[in-house]
This record gives sequence, structure tokens and C-alpha cells, in this order.
Amino acid sequence: MTAVTPALLVVSAHAGDFVWRAGGAIAAATMRGERATVVCLSFGERGESASQWLAGKSLEEIKEIRRAEAEAAASALGADIEFLDLGDYPLRESPEAVARLVDVYRRVQPTVVLTHPLHDPYNGDHPAAARMALEARVLAQAIGVANSDGSFPTKETIIGAPPVFFFEPHQPEQCGFVPDVLLDITAAFDKKRQAMECLPAQKHMWSYYSDLAVRRGVQVKRNAGPNLGLAHDTMGEAYMRYFPQVTGVLE
Amino acid sequence: MTAVTPALLVVSAHAGDFVWRAGGAIAAATMRGERATVVCLSFGERGESASQWLAGKSLEEIKEIRRAEAEAAASALGADIEFLDLGDYPLRESPEAVARLVDVYRRVQPTVVLTHPLHDPYNGDHPAAARMALEARVLAQAIGVANSDGSFPTKETIIGAPPVFFFEPHQPEQCGFVPDVLLDITAAFDKKRQAMECLPAQKHMWSYYSDLAVRRGVQVKRNAGPNLGLAHDTMGEAYMRYFPQVTGVLE
Amino acid sequence: MTAVTPALLVVSAHAGDFVWRAGGAIAAATMRGERATVVCLSFGERGESASQWLAGKSLEEIKEIRRAEAEAAASALGADIEFLDLGDYPLRESPEAVARLVDVYRRVQPTVVLTHPLHDPYNGDHPAAARMALEARVLAQAIGVANSDGSFPTKETIIGAPPVFFFEPHQPEQCGFVPDVLLDITAAFDKKRQAMECLPAQKHMWSYYSDLAVRRGVQVKRNAGPNLGLAHDTMGEAYMRYFPQVTGVLE
Amino acid sequence: MTAVTPALLVVSAHAGDFVWRAGGAIAAATMRGERATVVCLSFGERGESASQWLAGKSLEEIKEIRRAEAEAAASALGADIEFLDLGDYPLRESPEAVARLVDVYRRVQPTVVLTHPLHDPYNGDHPAAARMALEARVLAQAIGVANSDGSFPTKETIIGAPPVFFFEPHQPEQCGFVPDVLLDITAAFDKKRQAMECLPAQKHMWSYYSDLAVRRGVQVKRNAGPNLGLAHDTMGEAYMRYFPQVTGVLE
Amino acid sequence: MTAVTPALLVVSAHAGDFVWRAGGAIAAATMRGERATVVCLSFGERGESASQWLAGKSLEEIKEIRRAEAEAAASALGADIEFLDLGDYPLRESPEAVARLVDVYRRVQPTVVLTHPLHDPYNGDHPAAARMALEARVLAQAIGVANSDGSFPTKETIIGAPPVFFFEPHQPEQCGFVPDVLLDITAAFDKKRQAMECLPAQKHMWSYYSDLAVRRGVQVKRNAGPNLGLAHDTMGEAYMRYFPQVTGVLE
Amino acid sequence: MTAVTPALLVVSAHAGDFVWRAGGAIAAATMRGERATVVCLSFGERGESASQWLAGKSLEEIKEIRRAEAEAAASALGADIEFLDLGDYPLRESPEAVARLVDVYRRVQPTVVLTHPLHDPYNGDHPAAARMALEARVLAQAIGVANSDGSFPTKETIIGAPPVFFFEPHQPEQCGFVPDVLLDITAAFDKKRQAMECLPAQKHMWSYYSDLAVRRGVQVKRNAGPNLGLAHDTMGEAYMRYFPQVTGVLE
Repeated sequence: MTAVTPALLVVSAHAGDFVWRAGGAIAAATMRGERATVVCLSFGERGESASQWLAGKSLEEIKEIRRAEAEAAASALGADIEFLDLGDYPLRESPEAVARLVDVYRRVQPTVVLTHPLHDPYNGDHPAAARMALEARVLAQAIGVANSDGSFPTKETIIGAPPVFFFEPHQPEQCGFVPDVLLDITAAFDKKRQAMECLPAQKHMWSYYSDLAVRRGVQVKRNAGPNLGLAHDTMGEAYMRYFPQVTGVLE
Repeated sequence: MTAVTPALLVVSAHAGDFVWRAGGAIAAATMRGERATVVCLSFGERGESASQWLAGKSLEEIKEIRRAEAEAAASALGADIEFLDLGDYPLRESPEAVARLVDVYRRVQPTVVLTHPLHDPYNGDHPAAARMALEARVLAQAIGVANSDGSFPTKETIIGAPPVFFFEPHQPEQCGFVPDVLLDITAAFDKKRQAMECLPAQKHMWSYYSDLAVRRGVQVKRNAGPNLGLAHDTMGEAYMRYFPQVTGVLE
Repeated sequence: MTAVTPALLVVSAHAGDFVWRAGGAIAAATMRGERATVVCLSFGERGESASQWLAGKSLEEIKEIRRAEAEAAASALGADIEFLDLGDYPLRESPEAVARLVDVYRRVQPTVVLTHPLHDPYNGDHPAAARMALEARVLAQAIGVANSDGSFPTKETIIGAPPVFFFEPHQPEQCGFVPDVLLDITAAFDKKRQAMECLPAQKHMWSYYSDLAVRRGVQVKRNAGPNLGLAHDTMGEAYMRYFPQVTGVLE
Repeated sequence: MTAVTPALLVVSAHAGDFVWRAGGAIAAATMRGERATVVCLSFGERGESASQWLAGKSLEEIKEIRRAEAEAAASALGADIEFLDLGDYPLRESPEAVARLVDVYRRVQPTVVLTHPLHDPYNGDHPAAARMALEARVLAQAIGVANSDGSFPTKETIIGAPPVFFFEPHQPEQCGFVPDVLLDITAAFDKKRQAMECLPAQKHMWSYYSDLAVRRGVQVKRNAGPNLGLAHDTMGEAYMRYFPQVTGVLE
Repeated sequence: MTAVTPALLVVSAHAGDFVWRAGGAIAAATMRGERATVVCLSFGERGESASQWLAGKSLEEIKEIRRAEAEAAASALGADIEFLDLGDYPLRESPEAVARLVDVYRRVQPTVVLTHPLHDPYNGDHPAAARMALEARVLAQAIGVANSDGSFPTKETIIGAPPVFFFEPHQPEQCGFVPDVLLDITAAFDKKRQAMECLPAQKHMWSYYSDLAVRRGVQVKRNAGPNLGLAHDTMGEAYMRYFPQVTGVLE
Repeated sequence: MTAVTPALLVVSAHAGDFVWRAGGAIAAATMRGERATVVCLSFGERGESASQWLAGKSLEEIKEIRRAEAEAAASALGADIEFLDLGDYPLRESPEAVARLVDVYRRVQPTVVLTHPLHDPYNGDHPAAARMALEARVLAQAIGVANSDGSFPTKETIIGAPPVFFFEPHQPEQCGFVPDVLLDITAAFDKKRQAMECLPAQKHMWSYYSDLAVRRGVQVKRNAGPNLGLAHDTMGEAYMRYFPQVTGVLE
């Protein structure tokens, strides 16, 4: 058993999702010296840029604005970022898009994957992103599935079975989102706040997601066993596992 | 934040349950030098001792046989064991039984709790044990809830919020048991096997639960991320969390 | 393997429940020459006899009226009937009541058990009856569980593991009732109708439950495979299994 | 009502699935003299042939190897087999593929259908196969839906409403698989073992699925009513119904 | 806050669905002077016109027959009706079909939307219609999503977030349909009956759905609080909300 | 049909629960001129008064403190309040307690009932309160169920079927709490805040539950149809219905 380099892969439907929902986990990983890669499947150019459309911006202008904001936010979190530009509202699943994601998996070799939950009655792009992220993860494991350029992978470039965590949707109860992992992001919260502030068009979200971090932080404390001496200002993020946890110690 | 001593508490409806279902977790804990305490709420004297009844043994004889077997099995696992002798088939919930469990929690100060799942259409004693284990855990947290001798606890003797894991029932799918934790018990399996062999009346279970460990071990491998170099003979046990996991690292 | 005599046991919370909800299954069994036994845990004297209370009847009078009606209905169905007179609204679970049911199971040796579903937000007596029926069924299997007179059962008097079917509650969707068995009661419907007409105080239910039989009959036809040549006037009853079906043939 | 000839149709995503998961049911049917037809939607050439890819085989070679193995296994079970060669990893749903399955249904006139469950987080091809099998079954019932050659069916060639059973996935609890039918395959198990041995590349699965048959056999015994005199070495397979059971007798 | 004109939009997979399942709600709306618009995605020409196929009618003839019937039924209910003619059995989802529905939403500006539930094992067209209705509803809200002619919407032509109600499928329990709204349609029932009688090929459904209205009417009464003085002949329809109810008063 | 006087009944396990979880609904009712009655089953004297126990207060002193606080809070909300003093941690269900609640129902004649949800892994008193509230509601409907003084009710004193709403638990997702009603409490929020400030020992909860009102207010806006002109500072409370909504208008 050789050491494996931790690598976090975040598959985000739109350019901002990874900030609000997983910024703490991303910053915590990079603060530990690990690599984090964000893949934005679209810019959220049609469905999540109302103020820019109202301001008369063109589609291309909006995409550029959102790209720049997302790059700044990723930088604040210490993460790499790339954009597949698949279009949004709707984000449509396609074999080609999945094939590009297979390439990403094989290049990044993630040890942990974060994406949206599979159900969201308010935004169909989120489940579509999750379905593609999950399908590509399975295909990337198979040595008989070609890369997108037609070449075949090797034993070294196929991937294992990294755990997948769904991050929190906007209205969790309506999405069947029941947190089974509460992540302590206290130390990483400052970076998450900086990343949020890279997204000025959604300024009202800064306090909303700061309040949410407090709320999830309270739950971190409520659910912590006696061996965690948590401060009163614990900040948290909630996640849901898609696969069972594998461990050598119950804790 | 001071270091907390790990302590495992296992609440078992009958004298044998902890062996078949959680023997690996118990042995793994004691092999790490941690303390493990098993509380058997009954001996399983009426409902799980058919061969002894058929052999004409008396109730007291059967209880003594099962006590001795359970003590031997606990010893093989390196665990302490105690018996509340509440009767089985049915195991009836009562305020007095819960109060005795509150005392156990405050004495043991568990950092992890294992018990039965809350639903089992084949054996009502198992959910009854789980309900009492869960109720006592909450009561033991409250400084206003007296000990069973009428004295009041102190800040030092109330407990925190230890995580609770349900161990695997005999027919998991019928009990709503969906494993969300797969525990690698490879190193601990020999001790689990020894403990199983302390229960001669259920000899056909030895191979049954060894096979199950293989099966859950296959799942350990299937769900393990790339940073786990697992051997082909991995053995496993399945668990289900009752509360969300609290963690500082997604993995 | 020796032949087993089919025997149907129906555990009914109130005196009328077995008629509306399971009359077709009961009549179908007795028409095949099988024995059917109905156990009414109460008469429904408080909760389901409003018109008699309004008419100024006393509690004892009401119990007698309902006993007589239920006996007539059971007779129309060809079934034996007995009454435990445990009281209703609420029907309270107790060790004594369960012990009496254990005796019934050991005496009747049922090959099939019918009772209420486990959830009913409109009537708590129904789930209470089901819980007792299920608990007693498990206890009756154990050779170490005494009869209610303190004697012990023998290998011949303990029971096996008869399948349990929940019959249809009044508002099925609100009770989590999803039919997984649709019973063709076309041939038995006349007897069910006769039994319903033994309950004159609930005359408006006659047409209600006849309509329901038509509706479930339509579903019998819709779900029948090509090897069932069903007539247009098929009548049905819906049931829900509590345990998996055991079979030698998928069909 | 004329007699209907029993006919079993098994829709399998990959060439081996029907052996591990439904071999007992297939052999049991053919041993009763009934016809069984297996339709493999793909060969599993990309996703389930890792050892052959590592050995440097070409795609066409792998497909031929797996076809031959599957034919041998089907022969051991006494079943017909055909291959739609739709590709795997991913198996993509398409109107054309569904139309070919409609033809199969109308030709085979199945009285029972077996396929994969609708949810499987480990293998997207399995639910895709199930969705196509279910869609085609409904379309094949409609006299207004043309055959794939453009001709229209007759009253004789449309199908009825055969029951559908989902067979057991590899990690049942993670797939929402709750067995509601336990099939006794004791007499058929030798043929299932022979069929498994036709798949040499997955030799480690032979014992895995033999152990599973023992485990499901134990559950057959645990859930059997008193009228089944089952031997200690009962072997079983687990299934889940998609539609309610239609029956004239509760048992 | 300006007054909003109530407008009901009903998205129906086939030409008859809106009558059987939502005729009461539609008539009740138009009787209040509100506008109601029905969109039929197909005519049900292949899957729900068996008698016409058996009578040798052509596809186009069948479509015309069903269009005329649906127009008559809509007229009886006081509703407008339009047909997208997308084909049935199967009704296939497509970006073009969704875009046409987006146009409908922006034109109709619905304050309430009715459609099929998302799960129906008996008829895949129903969930397909629901998925398109839901996707189009979200897209129609976004100012960055173009109309189908390529023009962009204005602040006035995008829509808000109208509540969505699923109407009752044929076999509700099998579709996961748990009514959370019971609509009193007593006053509207005559019009619903007239609309049903516009569909002569399904004459057996007239009494079936009249009986269902009685049954749901009984539930209206059973669940009504004390401030509803309901007559004995209350008629009802059942619905299921997809989004939480927003209200200023709990009642 | 005579007019019914609206009356709100709130059944609260502990003295503070009704304030945090339902204060907005209560204030909104009394601001409409309706009567609201709060019944506290216990004072929360053992389980929710840690700071007072640590300060050395006696049980009776703690109960008096909490009674006074709850009375002040109820007064701020404009509600009546009464205390059954059944004890907490655990709050035990009993026939006597249920009988007292039956009396309350018959006296208050509620048109709406609020209580805790039926599942809460963190606090068993909450589900116990809900179970008693629900059982008493059904018993209070029956003319054959005596009052607690042994007298019988009349047609005027039995109750109808008031709707029941569960208010939000502390960790909603862990309690299976999926809001299906979002109540706009904007106008009532000031009174709720005043009531919260009557509970000085839980000062950290004031901001926590104010933040929650903002969060639920955002959801009120997100789920509101186009006919609601909601301001940006909408405040909300979330509820879950136990019975289907009965209505004459879908909206």
C-alpha cells in the first residue's frame, strides 16, 4: 500500500455553487496542503444572472463576468478551477459532456468528490450535474472505457472508488437532503467568506450563508461526542454521503 | 480541550447478540488499548435458548449457561461485561431499567455506543433494547436527572453526546438497515471467531457470521477510495449511524 | 414434511373491522373448507358506536349489541369468533392481553394471519391491535415462553412463522398502506355482502365497501398477468405483506 | 379462459448478470418444462471485462468471449439467449433499443419478467436496462404501438400484464432492494452452479454467490409458514416485485 | 402589491386525463370566473384508444376523434384547450417540447399548475408530462432563457413561482400518491360529469370516477375541521403538492 | 352551517417550546382576534434548565422560574397558558395524562392544533407530547369516551377533526421534518421576539430563532406564487401537516 496524494474534486453546475455550498470544505483541504479542483459545468449565465440580464448585458459578457468572479473565488479558496461551458437552464446531459468529465477524473485522480444532491425541485441543473458527475466517476474506473480522444486508459490512469459527498442545496428539506456529515469549517471560514465576497452580484447571500454556517456549527457541537472540545463560535457545513463510509475505527 | 479516554459501550438485548453483530468492533477497540463494556439486558433465556429448553433445563440453569458463555465471549474480545437480567421474550421497557442504564452511561462515560437498530419485525426485544439505550443516553446528559440512587450527577459525571451505531440485524433489509459505515475488522476477526466459538449451542452461526464478514469485507473494498490498499481477504462489519458524523475532514 | 391444515386467524381491534376489511378473504377460506377464527380485541363500544350512545344505550347494552352483530357476521362468513373484551378508545396494550393472544395462536395454529396495518393517524386502536398481534405471534414461537396459565408449550404447541397480511384501512394512503397483494374475492363477495348486512348501524358502509371491492377488482384485472382470464365484474380486497413471500415459483 | 403457456423473460444488462442473480429462477422454470428466454442488452465488454482488457484483447474478441460464455451458461440453465449488442459503460437508452425489446415481448409472450432493480449507485447500466425493460413492457401492451418493422400488432400479439420481479443487485441495501419474495432454489441450485462455472473469468464469484444462496436459503426457512417442511440446506434467491401480486389465495 | 388575475394551467399527457383527474378543480375555477387552460401534450392516440384501433381507424382519424372529444369536455368545464401533438406511447421529452411549454407558461401566467405525479409504473407518459411541465415552469421564470422564437422575455412576461398540484393517478398507492390536499368539488361535480360524458369510448370510467369522487368526498368530511358544515353528499378530488404551501393563516 | 369561533390549541412538551417554534403562529392568531391556548405538559425542569441546576436551585424553584417565564411569554403573545406538570426527562405517557388532555380539547374546542413532530432523536419528550396530543384529539371526538370526571360528553362538547400542524424541531432534517406549510409571520414577528425575550436563560436562542425566521422567510418568498407581493424582510415559520388539507380552492 503506497501513500496516495489527497485530491479534492468539486463538480458544480454553475459558477457560484461551489462557493456557497462547499467553500469551507475546499478551503480546509487547501489549508492542509491538499490539491482542490473545481469543475464548473456552466457559468449559470441564463438562470442565475438575472441582474445582469436586466442591466442589458449580452450572453457572452455575462459568461465572462461570471467566469472572472468564479476564478477569483476559487483563488481565494486556494483551488484550481476549470469550465466546461455546457450551458445552463437547462444544463443538458450528453455523452460528450460525460466523456469530458471522465477525462477530468482520470487527470485529477480525486480521493474525494463533492457535488450537488440528486433531487432539487427548484433547479434541475443541480441534479443533472450530479448525475453526470456520478456517471463519469463509474466510467472512469473501467479500463475498457476510452478517454475522450479515443485512447485507452492504463492501470495507472483509471481511478478507484473515491467517496462522494453531496453539498447542501438551498432548501434542504425539499431536496431530501438529510445531513449525515457535519464538517467543522471554523478555521476555514475566513477564506470562505473571502470567496463569497468575490461574488458581488449576490451580496445578500453573504450573510445568508454566514448564518447557515453558524446554524450548522451549532449542530456540529450538538452532535459532537465528548472528545471534541468545540468553541462556541464553531462554523459548519453539512454533507450527505452517497456511498457508505469505509473506516477502521468507529467514531 | 483535554484528551478524552476512548470507551466503547455496547447495549445488547440478549447474551449473544454482541458477539455475532459487533464482535469485530469490540475486539478492534480493545486491540487499540481502549476499554469496551458490554451490557446485556437479558440472557436470551426464553427466546434464544430453544435447545436448552428441549433438553429440559430450568430457567435458572439456562440463565447461568448463557451468562457463562457470554462472559467467555466477552473475555475473548477483551471486554468487560455486565447483565441487567431484565427478562426476555418480551424484554419490557420500564423507567427502572432505563434508570439503571443511565447509571451505566455515567459510570462508563462512553465515547462510542453500539446497539440494535430500531426496527426488527422478527424480534421485538432488539428494538426495545435500542429504545432504552437511546433514552438513557439522553437522560444521562442532563444534570437535572438524578442517578438511580436519588443523588444528582455533577458536571463531571453527566455525559456528552457520543455517536451511536446500530449493528447489523439478522435480516437487514427487512429491518430498514442500510449500512452507512463499513468497518474493516480484518485484524480483529480472529478474536471475533474465538468469541463466536464460546457459544457452542449456536454452532451453525459460526460459519454464517464468518461468511457475512467476508461479504461485508467485499463491500469494504468496493467502497474504499484509492488511498486504501486492501488485501483480498478483508473482513467487515456493517453499521448504521443514528446521528450525523461530526468531522474535521471529508474522507 | 407432513401436510398442514390451513387455518386463518384474524385479529380485529373492534367488532366490525374484520367484516369491512377482510370479509372476502375469510369467506374465500371457509368456502375452500378451511377454518377461520376471528379474535375481536374489543367491541368498539366507545369509539365506533356513536348512534347507540346518542340513543341512550348503556355501555353493557352497546357491547351486547355489537357482540351479537359480530357473531352474526362471522357466521355469515363461516368463521368462528371470540372476544377478548379489552376495551376500546383507547385499546391499551398490556402483557396480559398479549399473553391471551399467545394462547390463541397456540390453540389455532394459524397458517395465515390477518390484522390491521401498523400506522393509522385516525384510529390508534388499529395499530395497537396490530402490535399485539405481531408480538404475540413471535412469543408463541418460543418454547421458553409460558402459556398464560404458567404451563409450558411443547414442540407441538408452539407455532411456526405464518405469513401476516395487513388489511386495508379506511384512508389507505394516509396510513402508508401500499397494496402488495390484490386478492380476487369475486366468488366470496356475496357472503361478504351478507356479513356487512349484519351490521345495520353502519348501513352507509355497505355501498362504500361494495364500491371499494369494485375498485380493487379493477386493480386485480389491471395487474393480472396473461394467464388469468378475469371477468369484468371481478371484486377485490387489498393486502400488504409484513414479511417476504416464500415460494417455489415466481408468478 | 384458455390455458396460457408459462414463459419466462429475463432482461439482463450484461452477459453475466442473469447467471449470478437469477440462475436459480431460470433453472427452476426450465426444470418445470417451461420456456425461458434471456435477453442480454450488452456483453459487458467494457465495464465488466477488466482482466481481458489487461490481457490485451480487442473489443471484438472480448465480445465474442463473453457471448460464448453466456451461451454456455444459458444452455446449462436450459434457457434460450439472445444479444442486442447495445454497448455498455454506458448502456444508453434509445427509442430503437426499446422498439427491439417491444418485438421481443410480443414474440416471447412472457408470463413472468425478471430484470434489474431501478436504482444502483454502483452501476448505471443496470437501472438503464430495467427502465427499458419496463417501458417496452407497457408499449408492447398497446395495439396502437407498431412493431419495429412498422407493422401493427394484433389482439393475439400484444401482451398482457406479466408480473415483473427485480433480481438482487450486488450491494442490495445501497440499491433500495428489500426482498419481498424469497424463492426456494434448492432443487435448481446444481444447474445454477454449473452455469456459474461457465464464467471462468469471475471465478471468485462462484463461492460468493453460492454463499449468498445459503444466506437467502436461511431466510427462506425463517420466513416460511408452518406448512413448509424445509431441509437445512435450503438455497434461495431474493426478488422484489414491481407490481402487486394478484392471487386467489392468501398464503 | 397589485392584484393578480387567477389563472389555472393544466398539463395533461393525453387528451382525456384532465377530465377524469382534475375536472372538478377546473370547473370550480371557471365557476368562480377564473380562466383555465388545458394543454394536452398528446391525444393518447396510440396508448389509450384501443377500441378505435380495433375498429380499424387510422392514426389521423383517431387523433381527430380524440381532439374533438377533448374540446367538448374542455368546453363543458369552461376551459380553453390546446394540443401540442407530441405523440404518445411513448411521450418523449425533448428540448423543443419544453420550449413550447415555456411559451405557454409565459402566455398564460398561471397562478396554479396541475399535472400528473412524477411516478407511475403503469404509464410512463404521465411522469414524462410532469417532468416537462416542471422543467418548463422553472425555465419560464428566468429572464435569461429565450422564448422559442429566440426573443427574450421581459420582467412582465417571465413568471413567478405558481404552486404545482399533482392530480390523482389511476392506482394511487402504486404511484407514491399520498393526498395532501382534498378538494371539495361538490358544486362543480355536475360539470365534471358532463365533461366525462363527452368521452363515450370510456363509458365504464364515468361511474368509476363518480364513485371515486364519493370516496374522496367522504375523506373531505373526515378530515374537515369543525368549521366546515359539509353535507352528506360531498364530492372530492385528491391532490398532492410539489412545493410547500405558503400562507398567512394556519387552517 | 353555523359560524365556528377560531381557537388555537398548542400542546408543548416543555415550558419554552411554544415560544421558539410557534410564537409567530400564536401571535398572528391573537392579532386576528382569535383565542389561543397553550398547554405545557411539563416545565422542562430537569432537561432544559441546566444553568439553574448548576446555580444550585431546587426542583421546585426551577419549576416556578420556568412557569413565570412561560406565563410572561404567553402573555406577550396574547395567549392563555396552563401547565399539566407531568414531569420531564422523561415525559411519560399515561392514561391519566391523556384524559386530562381530552378535557382540554373539549373545553377549548380547537379549530387548529399545534404540537411537536412525532420523531426527534435528540429529545424523547417531544414525540411523547405529540403522541398524547394526537391520542387525546381522537378520544375527544368520541361520544362514548367519558370526561376525566367520569361524566359523559354531549354532542356539543365532543370535538370535530381540527387540523394538526407540527412545528419545527431544533434539527429538522434529523427529525424527518419536511415543511409543507410556510407561514408568513412578518407582522407577528415583533411579538414573537418579545416573547423570546421573556426567556432570559436561553438568550443565545434569541438570535438563533430570529435568524431561522429570516431563513424560513426567504423560503416563503421563494415558494410564493405570483399573487403574493412579499417584502424583502419577510419572516417565516415552518410547519408540517399531519392530515391532508381540506379546501374549496387550490392555491
